[in-house]
Amino acid sequence: MNIASNGDFIMLKRKVFELLESGFEGSIYNKLLSGFIVILIIANVIAVIVESYAPIGQKYHDEFHLFNLISVAIFTLEYIARIWVSTEAPEADASKPLRTRVKYIFSSVALIDLMAIAPFFLSFIVAIDLRYLRMLRMLRLLKLTHYFKGLRLFINVLKQELPTIGAAIFIMIVLVTLSGSVMYSLEHTAQPEVFDSIPSAIWWSVVTMTTVGYGDVTPITFLGKFVATFIMLLGVGVVALPAAMLAAKFGEELSDRKKHLEAEVANALEDGVVTVSERAVLDKLAEELNISQDSLEKLLNSRALTRYTTTSCEGG
Amino acid sequence: MNIASNGDFIMLKRKVFELLESGFEGSIYNKLLSGFIVILIIANVIAVIVESYAPIGQKYHDEFHLFNLISVAIFTLEYIARIWVSTEAPEADASKPLRTRVKYIFSSVALIDLMAIAPFFLSFIVAIDLRYLRMLRMLRLLKLTHYFKGLRLFINVLKQELPTIGAAIFIMIVLVTLSGSVMYSLEHTAQPEVFDSIPSAIWWSVVTMTTVGYGDVTPITFLGKFVATFIMLLGVGVVALPAAMLAAKFGEELSDRKKHLEAEVANALEDGVVTVSERAVLDKLAEELNISQDSLEKLLNSRALTRYTTTSCEGG
Amino acid sequence: MNIASNGDFIMLKRKVFELLESGFEGSIYNKLLSGFIVILIIANVIAVIVESYAPIGQKYHDEFHLFNLISVAIFTLEYIARIWVSTEAPEADASKPLRTRVKYIFSSVALIDLMAIAPFFLSFIVAIDLRYLRMLRMLRLLKLTHYFKGLRLFINVLKQELPTIGAAIFIMIVLVTLSGSVMYSLEHTAQPEVFDSIPSAIWWSVVTMTTVGYGDVTPITFLGKFVATFIMLLGVGVVALPAAMLAAKFGEELSDRKKHLEAEVANALEDGVVTVSERAVLDKLAEELNISQDSLEKLLNSRALTRYTTTSCEGG
Amino acid sequence: MNIASNGDFIMLKRKVFELLESGFEGSIYNKLLSGFIVILIIANVIAVIVESYAPIGQKYHDEFHLFNLISVAIFTLEYIARIWVSTEAPEADASKPLRTRVKYIFSSVALIDLMAIAPFFLSFIVAIDLRYLRMLRMLRLLKLTHYFKGLRLFINVLKQELPTIGAAIFIMIVLVTLSGSVMYSLEHTAQPEVFDSIPSAIWWSVVTMTTVGYGDVTPITFLGKFVATFIMLLGVGVVALPAAMLAAKFGEELSDRKKHLEAEVANALEDGVVTVSERAVLDKLAEELNISQDSLEKLLNSRALTRYTTTSCEGG
Repeated sequence: MNIASNGDFIMLKRKVFELLESGFEGSIYNKLLSGFIVILIIANVIAVIVESYAPIGQKYHDEFHLFNLISVAIFTLEYIARIWVSTEAPEADASKPLRTRVKYIFSSVALIDLMAIAPFFLSFIVAIDLRYLRMLRMLRLLKLTHYFKGLRLFINVLKQELPTIGAAIFIMIVLVTLSGSVMYSLEHTAQPEVFDSIPSAIWWSVVTMTTVGYGDVTPITFLGKFVATFIMLLGVGVVALPAAMLAAKFGEELSDRKKHLEAEVANALEDGVVTVSERAVLDKLAEELNISQDSLEKLLNSRALTRYTTTSCEGG
Repeated sequence: MNIASNGDFIMLKRKVFELLESGFEGSIYNKLLSGFIVILIIANVIAVIVESYAPIGQKYHDEFHLFNLISVAIFTLEYIARIWVSTEAPEADASKPLRTRVKYIFSSVALIDLMAIAPFFLSFIVAIDLRYLRMLRMLRLLKLTHYFKGLRLFINVLKQELPTIGAAIFIMIVLVTLSGSVMYSLEHTAQPEVFDSIPSAIWWSVVTMTTVGYGDVTPITFLGKFVATFIMLLGVGVVALPAAMLAAKFGEELSDRKKHLEAEVANALEDGVVTVSERAVLDKLAEELNISQDSLEKLLNSRALTRYTTTSCEGG
Repeated sequence: MNIASNGDFIMLKRKVFELLESGFEGSIYNKLLSGFIVILIIANVIAVIVESYAPIGQKYHDEFHLFNLISVAIFTLEYIARIWVSTEAPEADASKPLRTRVKYIFSSVALIDLMAIAPFFLSFIVAIDLRYLRMLRMLRLLKLTHYFKGLRLFINVLKQELPTIGAAIFIMIVLVTLSGSVMYSLEHTAQPEVFDSIPSAIWWSVVTMTTVGYGDVTPITFLGKFVATFIMLLGVGVVALPAAMLAAKFGEELSDRKKHLEAEVANALEDGVVTVSERAVLDKLAEELNISQDSLEKLLNSRALTRYTTTSCEGG
Repeated sequence: MNIASNGDFIMLKRKVFELLESGFEGSIYNKLLSGFIVILIIANVIAVIVESYAPIGQKYHDEFHLFNLISVAIFTLEYIARIWVSTEAPEADASKPLRTRVKYIFSSVALIDLMAIAPFFLSFIVAIDLRYLRMLRMLRLLKLTHYFKGLRLFINVLKQELPTIGAAIFIMIVLVTLSGSVMYSLEHTAQPEVFDSIPSAIWWSVVTMTTVGYGDVTPITFLGKFVATFIMLLGVGVVALPAAMLAAKFGEELSDRKKHLEAEVANALEDGVVTVSERAVLDKLAEELNISQDSLEKLLNSRALTRYTTTSCEGG
């Protein structure tokens, strides 16, 4: 690295920050770099998958190794650069750069980046089985979360619904464990090898209640089948409940967003006309709320109608 | 074709356009032609299915071939006629017939029509394997979209939900790939032939998380089963999410339609009575919005009630 | 039958009508008769199921036969009695008893009753295979619809949703057929016996897309598995759509009912107090709408609150 | 037990009541005791599961036995203590301690506690098969319901939806039985050993319609597969209906809660400002209704907006 004046150095840091953190927004350079890293991540994942297929993996062993070396080098560079420029984040305290960087290192995004390269360096110190090393290289896939902003709504709804989902999972675990024990007592004597212990029966329980149904473990006694019938009918409903609740919550979330937009629309329409600047605000909000231009148009029209209907009262 | 005066010729084009594009609406001739083409499409699909069953396919080889020849002839005629009359569409620019036709040829409906006949003509130029030719003939099924207007709501909702569904599919792909890799590392040594590579493990992952569960690939080690338990419970929820979100969106779409109708109902009831012409408008709207006469009736009654309740304030 | 005066005769007909058509409502005799017939229907179904198990069926052959004879006798008597008293229905035209009865005979409930006894009498005229006769006796189960009024909401919602469900089923059939053909072309050479024809491939398609996944037919080629992966992920969503749409519709139906009740509550609260008679009306409505007393109470309280909030405007 | 003055004794009872019934709320002692009992319950369940695995169960037989003895002793002590202090419950009638205790013994929570210890004492009187004894010990899992208050919403919604779910289950049973009989008549001659009786065919029906699909029983005839196709497509929808209905109901429940909160918010905002005490009430309500602080904030803002919009009418 060349020696530069302090101002140039700060400029460079600022530029690298923008390059790395803007994702696919901003200048063509941001887009190119983001595109390159996304492609590199996907190429890494595909490489691990293809390499695991022995005939190809053995033939092109050296090529795969080289590609991994280059990838680790790039990801390491990216990781260090991200730590270096983390002081440029708007929420960072400029006077404590070290503290900001340490804080960044322990953030979830930085830990994911570390996971993508750490196994490689660790393998020099500790002997890691090749198969587990491969599995760990797959974690590079998680680096994509840098570029996928749409996940936030998901994570938000999931967080809000955690208590209800928790209750559903608790019921599920109780049901799975109890029905496993019941089936163990009913089928153990008939199939001592298949239903050899309660864990095996719980495996049957999970495979059945999630409706996966491999068929590797099935009841064969009349009583076992009779009880299994009820477990299935019950289990299907219980296992579907968390999804049902999430659906309900998503519906609510969507209608909340809409109501917020409607309030803004009502505000904009109060004086009878939607000015250009008001429209711009609504457009931005609609985009933010993932509501299409079509829906917004419909909303404005129906609101205008309602206004016409209800404002007649004003004259009274 | 007979030589006709220009006026007659335009009349004919107009008539053919109406015959082909009105679907099951309008005159008895439209209905007959549409019915004939729909039956021909279904007969083609059934023919391909039945022909693939060797004993029947070999015995009636010539009959199936003849039927295919006739079908291709009719579909080709229909295709050319549709291109010819595409200039009659209301949105077409009358002064540029060639441009209109080229535009129509590249529209999705015209491309589907082309797909229905192209393989037959291509098979004279290029050698196409009989099995693939059969598969391509099945695409004639898509010609039915000409006559199925109800699909629009579907496609609309799907389009609007694309970003959220995209996020769900991204999560799904990440989960499927990661869980496949995990199972590969856990089961490879125990079942080197079944879990021979990560692609095989991903196949297990997809079969499991979609709850299909063929049972051709299942974990047999204790750790494999233990981890698979969590993959199943998690996977079921994640795979059900897109459907849950679509459900939420459909619910919202339905309630939006209803609100639009309610605004119109409020408008119609403003003067206390629903006139015959207002009722006709509401009936048409309700039909358009797929709301039954019953629901409309209920809506009118409840609205009238509410009006009675809230208007007491006007006198104050 | 004894010869009775005309008046007595009419009284008897009236009484039999009440006995048969009131279900579990009204006098203790109605309840006893309804209970007896319901138990007899269930006993018949259980008898058919148990009889099909050869060891028991052969041992108690005569007992089962006798029970069937008695059941047919009772059901025949019930059938004739229902036709006889059908003229007593409130909607019946008293001046045309024959026409009323013929109309009743062709109603869906009467046809179900006929199906329950007809196979027995038919078996004397035409030779019916014992197994099919058993299956037909199972149709007696449908006689229970006489006593299950809760089904109406279901049938209502299903009827309203028929067009959208129709569209979903159309998409499903297209997807199943197309994916079946694709898999046939990909797997036929590798497994000529399993994927022997397109119908077999469609069977795979249905078993897979409904996520049943028996495992009797599975792809084994790499390309087949690769394509099947997408078919599964897509199929799961498409097959779940009709259920999702029904869920959306049920939600709408429930909220519609609630709104209707709310309008009535608003009406009742207008004068500030809910009189005893108003409360009785609301209770009846809530029960009819399948809304619990708890929910009604909550509704009344929240409404009273809102009233308090909004009526402050009246004084302005 | 030492002899203490009456006042001390009452104090002790009061304290034990608080220790046992406060769950994880209140003092550090409550938390420690609750934590200890929860861990003991989970340890018991894990012990039963692990013990059922023969190699471990036989090797550590004495340790497992000792652990069971200690657990039963603690649970018995807890059970007796809970009965003893049940007179301290706020809803208990202080003048009739015996009656209160008898009533408590027959409450659902006390019966669950009894089930956790009764089998152990019964095994001295009656000989109980070891396997069934194990299954009964699993019921200790239900003791966790003491500490899981989040279950109430579930049980509430399930109770309210019982009639509709009942109708869905009735339809399901009819469909399962009828389709089982149909498949029996179609497949019995082709597979007399697999489809040996209607119960076996009903087993196929349940396994198929819940989409579990083990593959132990599958149709092999063309007609059987053809009919099974329709059973699958129909069955999937019907079995998904109860879950769909619960989803709709959960959605409604959530929006009801929200409306209740909105009414309170409207009340609080009436005078233009949200006072500290009003805010405290809203916070408590939001927490009770499982609504996050974020959602409450949004609600307050949107409400304030709407108020601003609509109150302009007041001046007219």
